[in-house]
Amino acid sequence: MRNIKLVIQYDGSKYRGWQRLGDSDKTIQGKLENVLSQMTNEKIEIIGSGRTDAGVHAYKQVANFHTQSDMSEEAILEYLYNYLPEDIVVVDVEEVDGKFHSRYHAKGKKYLYRIWNSRFHNPFLRKYCTHVAEPLDINLMRNAAKYLVGKHDFTSFTSLKSKKKSMVRELFSIEIQKENEIIDILFHGDGFLYNMVRIMAGTLIEVGAGRMNADSIPEILEKRDRSLSGPKAPYTGLILYDVEY
Amino acid sequence: MRNIKLVIQYDGSKYRGWQRLGDSDKTIQGKLENVLSQMTNEKIEIIGSGRTDAGVHAYKQVANFHTQSDMSEEAILEYLYNYLPEDIVVVDVEEVDGKFHSRYHAKGKKYLYRIWNSRFHNPFLRKYCTHVAEPLDINLMRNAAKYLVGKHDFTSFTSLKSKKKSMVRELFSIEIQKENEIIDILFHGDGFLYNMVRIMAGTLIEVGAGRMNADSIPEILEKRDRSLSGPKAPYTGLILYDVEY
Repeated sequence: MRNIKLVIQYDGSKYRGWQRLGDSDKTIQGKLENVLSQMTNEKIEIIGSGRTDAGVHAYKQVANFHTQSDMSEEAILEYLYNYLPEDIVVVDVEEVDGKFHSRYHAKGKKYLYRIWNSRFHNPFLRKYCTHVAEPLDINLMRNAAKYLVGKHDFTSFTSLKSKKKSMVRELFSIEIQKENEIIDILFHGDGFLYNMVRIMAGTLIEVGAGRMNADSIPEILEKRDRSLSGPKAPYTGLILYDVEY
Repeated sequence: MRNIKLVIQYDGSKYRGWQRLGDSDKTIQGKLENVLSQMTNEKIEIIGSGRTDAGVHAYKQVANFHTQSDMSEEAILEYLYNYLPEDIVVVDVEEVDGKFHSRYHAKGKKYLYRIWNSRFHNPFLRKYCTHVAEPLDINLMRNAAKYLVGKHDFTSFTSLKSKKKSMVRELFSIEIQKENEIIDILFHGDGFLYNMVRIMAGTLIEVGAGRMNADSIPEILEKRDRSLSGPKAPYTGLILYDVEY
């Protein structure tokens, strides 16, 4: 069996997220598996680096699948480009070692959270940014972000309820940039808990708007209590930006 | 009667263009008139600076309408923001002199033509850029653009067939910039004939791809023959960028 790695971009606006739900092809995974199965005449199952929620986008998602097909990388790339819908584009196909696993071998991930910070929403970016009308102070947001960076128990920043699994993750960096009306928050870490990026973004928005204090973050982390952090920010501004191996 | 000027942004993807067609509200003008009529309890007709074709976008379209309503500029702005669909945003409302006419008084216009120049289309920009897979040489395009700038008879660059009206327009400038995979062509002129920007863009793409010679432009202009210029480029990449008074 060959092991094929895919790099995928998608506009998640019309989908229920990455993970296949039954036979529905309203998911990114479902769409990809349908086209790959048709291409190979096999029942293909793909392994993604992780799930993305409904409406969430990806600049670079990584997945792999096993096949007996002898199609070249180039022929697979071309087939996928021709048969996938316009909002999903596979930009790279590579045959990899049989042991490569998109999820287990991911060493780091980057998520981008984009905010359109202006009185009115932007008709062109409304599906790719979260609109925040009140002015946000990015210096306050940067101060809060500093406390999140590092190795922490992120129980206060996840919707996950399980008490069995470790809630410890390491955030390598959070970069916050503003260009005109767009505020980009780039999160880089070894892994992210369920809803962790959206809750961190929601908390940073509260801080930027002056409703929460940057200096309250260490205590919020320490108390491991979801009710202390900010609201989960909308899915529209969330983009899986990169997966590192 | 008061005369109210509007500045409008829209994502034209879902519309049949600016101009109202009967009672349909599949047009930008129709949508605006419906909401304004509901707001004022009058039958409002708006005057746009010019039409845009089906699927064409606007960063800054200007229109005006007459009303007996005594609503403040701010209240109109707020009402329109609340009742217009998400893909049409009025970003400015101003009461102007009774004689102001959006179309007759426009002194200049800018149109932006955006090209995504890469092997695969971009899932996020597919409605806001025209995808050209073959590499384009922007230096060749700039050479061709130089010949288009100035006061010319643009018969070769319009779909308009009328022989009565003047086909002479003045192009003040054409700026061509490339940033990563995006090529932006900004056309600035005193006015544009029907399909003129799309035919100029299509011709510049032919030149950039090496299928037409930049030095052939003066002869194409001189012969006043539409069959000599390039194809009409797709609507997706076209954006009404500014209207000047």
